[in-house]
Amino acid sequence: MTVAQESISIHTGGRGAHDITSEVERVVGGSGVRIGTCHVFASHTSASLIVCENADPQVLGDLEAWLARLVPDGDRLFRHTAEGRDDMPAHVRSVLTHTDVVLPVSAGRLRLGTWQGVYLYEHRIAAHTRQVIITVQGE
Amino acid sequence: MTVAQESISIHTGGRGAHDITSEVERVVGGSGVRIGTCHVFASHTSASLIVCENADPQVLGDLEAWLARLVPDGDRLFRHTAEGRDDMPAHVRSVLTHTDVVLPVSAGRLRLGTWQGVYLYEHRIAAHTRQVIITVQGE
Amino acid sequence: MTVAQESISIHTGGRGAHDITSEVERVVGGSGVRIGTCHVFASHTSASLIVCENADPQVLGDLEAWLARLVPDGDRLFRHTAEGRDDMPAHVRSVLTHTDVVLPVSAGRLRLGTWQGVYLYEHRIAAHTRQVIITVQGE
Repeated sequence: MTVAQESISIHTGGRGAHDITSEVERVVGGSGVRIGTCHVFASHTSASLIVCENADPQVLGDLEAWLARLVPDGDRLFRHTAEGRDDMPAHVRSVLTHTDVVLPVSAGRLRLGTWQGVYLYEHRIAAHTRQVIITVQGE
Repeated sequence: MTVAQESISIHTGGRGAHDITSEVERVVGGSGVRIGTCHVFASHTSASLIVCENADPQVLGDLEAWLARLVPDGDRLFRHTAEGRDDMPAHVRSVLTHTDVVLPVSAGRLRLGTWQGVYLYEHRIAAHTRQVIITVQGE
Repeated sequence: MTVAQESISIHTGGRGAHDITSEVERVVGGSGVRIGTCHVFASHTSASLIVCENADPQVLGDLEAWLARLVPDGDRLFRHTAEGRDDMPAHVRSVLTHTDVVLPVSAGRLRLGTWQGVYLYEHRIAAHTRQVIITVQGE
C-alpha cells in the first residue's frame, strides 16, 4: 500500500471554475498507485471543488449564472460583510458545493467518466492563489 | 491492507432516486475488508449520489419536488440546451448533490445509520444506464 | 498502513452548526497515522457535516439564515411531515450539505486551512444526540 500527498497552488484569476484535472492527473501518475482513490481537498472556505461537464464551456457559464442568482452578492440577509458584498456568498457557495472530492484510480490513472472534469471553483470576485492538497492511496 | 474495486451498471428508469444500497453492500461483503471505507463514485455529470432517508418513500418524492422547483427545467437563464430542457438542470443538480460519497466499513459491512440508504439520482427525465465505481479500502 | 476507526456521540443542543474539529483532531492524533486521510461520517439524514469559516460566528449565523430561507420550515410543497414542520427541510438540508467529508492528514495532524473548521450541522429544531464515525487511514 502507498500513500502519496502533494500540495499544489492554483492562481484562480477570479470568480469561476478553473479546470485542475491535468494537475490532479499528474499527481496520480507520479504516486505509483495503480488502484485506489485520489482525495482532492481545497484548503479554503470561499473556494471549493466541483466535478462538472468538460465539453461545452457554456455549462460552466450557466452554472455560474445560476449560483449568482441563488446566492446574490450584497444580499441584505447577510451581516458578515467584512470583506465585501461577495464575502458571505462565497462561504455559502462553498458549503453548497464541495470542500473535498474523492476520485477513483484504476490502472495508475484517474478514472473519470468521459465528460467529467475536476474544477477548483473560485467564489470570490477577485483573483486568489489557492492551495489544493491531493492524497493518493492504494496499491 | 486491501483495495477492491468494482464497476456496476445501474439502469435508472428515468428521473429520481434509485436505491443502490444492496449493490454497494454486496461489493463491500466481497472485498474482504473488515474495517475501512467504501468510496462510491458516479461517472456522470447529470446523475449523482445522495445518502437519504430510506423508510418513507414520500421523502424522496418531496426531495424531487423541491429540486424541480429550485432548478426548473427550461429555465431561460440557461444557454446550454443541446440535449433539451432538462440538460442544464441535470448538471446543476449534480453539482448540488454528490458525485462521490464515502461510507464507513465496520466488521466487514457497510456501517450506515438506521435510516440511511445510498441512492443514485438520475437527473435526466429519460432512463439511462449509469456507471458507478465502488472502491473499498481497509484491512 | 494503519486504519483506525472511532464513533463519537455529539449532543447538538438544537438547530445549527456545532464545531467538532477538536474531537476529530483527537481521533487523528490517537490513530498513529502520519500521512493519509480522515473520513468523517454523520450516521443521520437530518444532521450533516460542513467545513466552514471558523473565525467570525456571524458566518454560521448567516449560513443558517440563508438555509432557513431556501428551505423554509412548513413549506406546503412537503407531504412528509410526520415529525413536524422541520422534518422534511432537515432531509433536504442534509442532501444539500454533506453526509461525509474527507480531510487530509499530514505530520500526524489534521491538515486544515487556517480558517477551516469541521461542523456537525443539526437541521432539526430540537436537540439530538448524533453519532459521527471517524476513520483514519494512512501510514
